[in-house]
Amino acid sequence: MTKDYAVGIDIGGTNTKFGIVDRKGNILEQGRMRTDTHENAEDFISELYVNLSKLIDSHGGSEKFKGIGVGAPNGNYYTGTIEYAPNLKWKGIIPMAELIEKKFELPTKLTNDANAAAMGEMMYGVAKGLKHFITITLGTGVGSGIVIDGKIVVGHDGFAGELGHIIVKPGGRLHKGTGMRGSLESYASATGVRETAIEFLTNEPDTASLLRNYSIDDLTSETVYNCAIQGDVIANKIFEFTGEVLGEALANFVMFSSPEAIVLFGGLTKAGDLILKPTVRAMEANLLPIFQNKVKVIFSDLKEADAAILGASALVWESEH
Amino acid sequence: MTKDYAVGIDIGGTNTKFGIVDRKGNILEQGRMRTDTHENAEDFISELYVNLSKLIDSHGGSEKFKGIGVGAPNGNYYTGTIEYAPNLKWKGIIPMAELIEKKFELPTKLTNDANAAAMGEMMYGVAKGLKHFITITLGTGVGSGIVIDGKIVVGHDGFAGELGHIIVKPGGRLHKGTGMRGSLESYASATGVRETAIEFLTNEPDTASLLRNYSIDDLTSETVYNCAIQGDVIANKIFEFTGEVLGEALANFVMFSSPEAIVLFGGLTKAGDLILKPTVRAMEANLLPIFQNKVKVIFSDLKEADAAILGASALVWESEH
Repeated sequence: MTKDYAVGIDIGGTNTKFGIVDRKGNILEQGRMRTDTHENAEDFISELYVNLSKLIDSHGGSEKFKGIGVGAPNGNYYTGTIEYAPNLKWKGIIPMAELIEKKFELPTKLTNDANAAAMGEMMYGVAKGLKHFITITLGTGVGSGIVIDGKIVVGHDGFAGELGHIIVKPGGRLHKGTGMRGSLESYASATGVRETAIEFLTNEPDTASLLRNYSIDDLTSETVYNCAIQGDVIANKIFEFTGEVLGEALANFVMFSSPEAIVLFGGLTKAGDLILKPTVRAMEANLLPIFQNKVKVIFSDLKEADAAILGASALVWESEH
Repeated sequence: MTKDYAVGIDIGGTNTKFGIVDRKGNILEQGRMRTDTHENAEDFISELYVNLSKLIDSHGGSEKFKGIGVGAPNGNYYTGTIEYAPNLKWKGIIPMAELIEKKFELPTKLTNDANAAAMGEMMYGVAKGLKHFITITLGTGVGSGIVIDGKIVVGHDGFAGELGHIIVKPGGRLHKGTGMRGSLESYASATGVRETAIEFLTNEPDTASLLRNYSIDDLTSETVYNCAIQGDVIANKIFEFTGEVLGEALANFVMFSSPEAIVLFGGLTKAGDLILKPTVRAMEANLLPIFQNKVKVIFSDLKEADAAILGASALVWESEH
């Protein structure tokens, strides 16, 4: 029987998304489940199996499937393991590819979630045809995939491209997951925007803000966005600040690998120009002249998570070439 | 006649070094001249011609030479030009490879000085056999060469690897050449050490220091080193601080490309453990656990400038493979 389909799985800190993908990169059906409600990887895989088996069965059963591709935080392409992922509850080294392969009885490959997304962008997204680009996921955390000369940079051990954990403000905000101070992820993630909101509201107790109508628990990057588009001064300052921090970091990345484009995706990009404009401005201001006005900063046009699902599924076809 | 030799030229901000190199990577003879005393590139090339012609003639004349390889700040491998180099007096875009080729009537190739050094380390130095490493020059300025999968990273436009200009302290010390604030080069270069010395001596007017015996003009990284090994408290703090800034930056580089080793060379490495220990300590402290205790930070064992001369000369042989 011809193996027409692949499964692509994107394991994120909060949610896991999965899809059935054909050889042309069409996502035929997809689903999602919580990641963070599972205390250990085995429980997670059990629920994943229940959810995903239905989709596999409704597409002809596992004989029609060539394999499973997984993108996961701190995923290692060489070993198929997830190692010490600060944004996951499962600690230590998890042999995720092996566990999934046993459960589903399908060949399984795994890579870093952000590398999967970069591959999705390169094969099916805005980075199609580009040889030098960087993707940055602005989600619960900040992930990254670096492409140089058309290849994903994995480094000598499979872990390259952890740009979310780069220190952008030495001695700055504490990142609870890693214990580091001043990392990009502490600022330019949904979590970071929320923390910036709390900080700004606390530091300026006398400035009126729509954000004060929300309880601390309801202060999310979405509520900040909703207030910002209504002209709220503090909400706008929050995006301005977030963009500045992100743009300064992007300038550093450009001076490293000189990419043609930086592709942004993930929840924060829903803020559109509110985040894009200060980001580009800060990036340009921190670049040497030889790099200025050359690098396109663009939003992914793939639907949320599609890039990662597609990129993960591409791992399955990869072995055929 | 067999073309047995190549010329390797390393253009630095202060000095230019050049050598006659054979196919095995032996530097048969070398010389140096000032770079910064020449207001324009044509004058510089005239003096270079006078100096270098003697060496070429004493090795059989130009018929014995296959070509000339040049490493230069902001040198572009694709175009052979030096573009807007902040550490050179010559502004704008200098078609250096073309100018040298015309003057010497020998095929000339050019690349970034730090990329040339990285190539020298990979072919003849401590990085021999490594596929993933970064070289950092700690000289008048800070240069870098990045090797991924055995290839120098040049990016989409030939300018990748300008790690000296990465911002490590946003809003920090002004870099006079670029107008940027807080770049690595403002701290971790010979110039940076001198500035740190002036800063520390000014900020702690009551702390006794051997450094106070020197006039401001004589405060160099060498004098700081000489005082440090005599146990001077401020001089030791200067290297401690410099190493910390450098180590924090190295941690960021590691999280980008996950190299096996970082090779340091240039004037500041003469300080040995005084600079190496705080650098490694700060790097490890700023790495995610998955990267810790994996990356070797080593000094080049090639004589100063030899790496760059050898790497530049390697450009000449490159075309034969």
